[in-house]
Amino acid sequence: MPRDPENRLGELLARARDAALVDALLALLQWDERTTLPIGGRAYRAEQVARVAGQLHAIRTDPGLGDCLGELAESPLAADPHSDEGATIRVMRRDFERNAKIPARLVEELARETVLGQQAWAEARNRNEYALFRPRLDRILALKREQADTLGHGGARYDAMLEEYEPGATVRELTGVLEGLRLALIPWVAEAADACRGREARLLGRFYSRSDQEAFGVEAAARIGFDFSRGRLDVTDHPFCTTLGPHDCRITTRYDERFFPTAFFGILHEAGHGIYEQGLRTDWYGTPPGSFASLGVHESQSRLWENLVGRSRPFWEHHFPIAQRRFPSALEGARLDAFLGEINMVRPSLIRVEADEATYNLHIVLRFELEQALLDDTLSTTDLPAAWNAKYAEFLGITPPDDASGVLQDVHWSAGLFGYFPTYTIGNLLAAQIAEAYRASDRASDAEWSRGDYTGLLEWLRREIHTRGRCFSAPELCRRATGRELAPDALLAHLRGKFAQAYHGHVGS
Amino acid sequence: MPRDPENRLGELLARARDAALVDALLALLQWDERTTLPIGGRAYRAEQVARVAGQLHAIRTDPGLGDCLGELAESPLAADPHSDEGATIRVMRRDFERNAKIPARLVEELARETVLGQQAWAEARNRNEYALFRPRLDRILALKREQADTLGHGGARYDAMLEEYEPGATVRELTGVLEGLRLALIPWVAEAADACRGREARLLGRFYSRSDQEAFGVEAAARIGFDFSRGRLDVTDHPFCTTLGPHDCRITTRYDERFFPTAFFGILHEAGHGIYEQGLRTDWYGTPPGSFASLGVHESQSRLWENLVGRSRPFWEHHFPIAQRRFPSALEGARLDAFLGEINMVRPSLIRVEADEATYNLHIVLRFELEQALLDDTLSTTDLPAAWNAKYAEFLGITPPDDASGVLQDVHWSAGLFGYFPTYTIGNLLAAQIAEAYRASDRASDAEWSRGDYTGLLEWLRREIHTRGRCFSAPELCRRATGRELAPDALLAHLRGKFAQAYHGHVGS
Repeated sequence: MPRDPENRLGELLARARDAALVDALLALLQWDERTTLPIGGRAYRAEQVARVAGQLHAIRTDPGLGDCLGELAESPLAADPHSDEGATIRVMRRDFERNAKIPARLVEELARETVLGQQAWAEARNRNEYALFRPRLDRILALKREQADTLGHGGARYDAMLEEYEPGATVRELTGVLEGLRLALIPWVAEAADACRGREARLLGRFYSRSDQEAFGVEAAARIGFDFSRGRLDVTDHPFCTTLGPHDCRITTRYDERFFPTAFFGILHEAGHGIYEQGLRTDWYGTPPGSFASLGVHESQSRLWENLVGRSRPFWEHHFPIAQRRFPSALEGARLDAFLGEINMVRPSLIRVEADEATYNLHIVLRFELEQALLDDTLSTTDLPAAWNAKYAEFLGITPPDDASGVLQDVHWSAGLFGYFPTYTIGNLLAAQIAEAYRASDRASDAEWSRGDYTGLLEWLRREIHTRGRCFSAPELCRRATGRELAPDALLAHLRGKFAQAYHGHVGS
Repeated sequence: MPRDPENRLGELLARARDAALVDALLALLQWDERTTLPIGGRAYRAEQVARVAGQLHAIRTDPGLGDCLGELAESPLAADPHSDEGATIRVMRRDFERNAKIPARLVEELARETVLGQQAWAEARNRNEYALFRPRLDRILALKREQADTLGHGGARYDAMLEEYEPGATVRELTGVLEGLRLALIPWVAEAADACRGREARLLGRFYSRSDQEAFGVEAAARIGFDFSRGRLDVTDHPFCTTLGPHDCRITTRYDERFFPTAFFGILHEAGHGIYEQGLRTDWYGTPPGSFASLGVHESQSRLWENLVGRSRPFWEHHFPIAQRRFPSALEGARLDAFLGEINMVRPSLIRVEADEATYNLHIVLRFELEQALLDDTLSTTDLPAAWNAKYAEFLGITPPDDASGVLQDVHWSAGLFGYFPTYTIGNLLAAQIAEAYRASDRASDAEWSRGDYTGLLEWLRREIHTRGRCFSAPELCRRATGRELAPDALLAHLRGKFAQAYHGHVGS
């Protein structure tokens, strides 16, 4: 036990903040790569990212950090594992032990290969040539297998991957939840899609100018709580949210002038991530009490604003008249009911990021299965496109016409993000449970939302989720905030209820 | 002498490249600060810049680097001081000795204070309140005086500052050249301004849409040689050019829809800087043979394209018809002669960056005098605004109505850039000598330029300036490329000749 634990804690926090500062450098290098980097600058950027990732790894695995954590773990400051100090020591120790297992060489190789992998993926997708990407994917997979085996696991490499994004989650438990969801969804989706057959996105497919979409989206993002004095919105092919400092959170979107939902729900989604980041405690920036709990929890925040709020009738009771004024040629004289029907249509489709709220989860479950097989080496990258297409036929009843709209559609694997996909569905499940809990705590939510007032929900989220940081694990946070374990039923009830309301018919309920 | 000098040289180059990679990180942090950073992110950005500047300083002052340089300086590789290897050893040794004198604390303080200084300056300028900036300026000046005294000098602190931007230049020599220029310019400017009296910028003040200005500027920048696959153009209040890697050079501009020259000549200017950067040898990126010679040489490249080419009759013989098609409502039916007269008008004005090609140099000479007095502590920051206004009255016959258009107009001092201003006029002088030498070598230049062909000049610059990197000092480069020492006469002859041609009257010649 250290003689002066407070002093040692100060050292620990200084180390954490230094790592956060370098991590934010890395985030800037990556943000810039995806938004603005000239094409000629890519190779050098990969070198820079590798250099900074190596430096960050050195800071995170410094033996002095290990000593500091070892001493503090024995001190009274560590007594309460959920206090700011206790959680800091506990979580940083867990991260340190994990990081210390990985050699610097592997960190730098992964950093470099995944920058190059993303570049190769983008080209392969543009040219619709999976073969351009496959050798890079093999190299990345070899490094990820090595990483999983180095980290250690009880037989399933995928557990080691999950631990990175969703600490405490296991393949076994997750399979149970996702299987339950899949079994209920497949038949319900088929019925709902039947009910939607013949309907077209007539309103949503009209012309919406990019500049008006941007203005409308920025206004809505600000209204739900995204602070543009501490953030910004840019344009990228593959939208994302990243944090470059305690007061610098950046979101991106893409615009389709002939399909309204792409940018608008994308902005709500990324703003939801940003609102979580902006709601973290800045005095603990870069340390566990000021960090997000898990990627699943992060995703619950984006899905909540995008779907549970943003596709609801009360939300549009306020926003539809505003949209009609902003887009008179597209929406003048249109009926709110028709609009709600279109934004809540259920229809199996090829592209995950364009999928509706229900079918989306089937895109995830099939990726969850495929990436386990890739990591376990029971599926080769050569057979991957065929396996992909077979799963789409099985789960969604459709087959991709080419790899660009099939196996090449997502950036994740090229970026080394295996085990990341399930966090999207964890987010959907948690968002539905959160909305249910919030409604139970404050029956006025519909009335508030239809006035354009989201402060009640925002304050609830700040209190129950954002300001808790990483002091609780995701499952603990879920239990405390929603009163129960993560399960498929809240999401299924939400989908059934909304669909019934939108289509005045009760499908599968 | 090292037993294996080639091996040691490899080590030296690896160290130089590592420093360049970190320097490019710093450049990205600063580019982002000036183009996109949300307002809330500024304080943290200052911390990041300080951290990375400290890291860079540590790399550049590593004792192992000193040992390596000491050994190599005795090896046969150092024999020819202008060979790639010899220059690398000589220049890196000079830089190392200079850097090693400065303590890390001072580097980090300067980095932090100048980020904060620029933020305070921007606010002071916006609010027209010099008092908001003065305490920051005092702090920066104290650090710069400390830096100059630490570096050492023969009595003039300013020499230590000049050495940073224009290695080998001294106050004594520079004063001689600038005095000669000033004495000739003041009466000539008065006469030329008289000849222009009553004329208005009628064509230039019409409406030029921002998007058309951008398209026209990008087209011209590409035509003179800026490669957009290795660079980009963005918007900032204070335009600049920065290099973020061997194939990533970024320029910025600002648009005034009611004054054509602001963006267009700004783009040519920054593209000129960028063309120099893009013409450096990428195989020697980050080392002296792949670095620019001095800021004065850098500025000669921007001024050459902006003024010697961009304001010439042959340039507009090609570009004027294109401009007329791009801006029909502003330029349809306009005469080329009238346009040339407007873009070459001589008129004393308040703002340096908007000054014409002739009066510009008087803005520089007065800053050169004031900043020497600030560093020597013979002028206090309290008295600075009055001293500034008095100089404007003396040199240009006009007095700023407020500090925003007076002493607060430039970012430089807030960024700690003392000794930087004279490099602008060195650039003007050198550009005029280069144009003279190029014309002497290739009498076809007018015919080429009026066809929109700048490859002859570009190749000459690549050969005589760009690919020589830092293997020669700026004065040596000037002598080799133009056949003589830097002097005021080529610039004066150029100004007189062009003015006479534009106004069909011979003023002061």
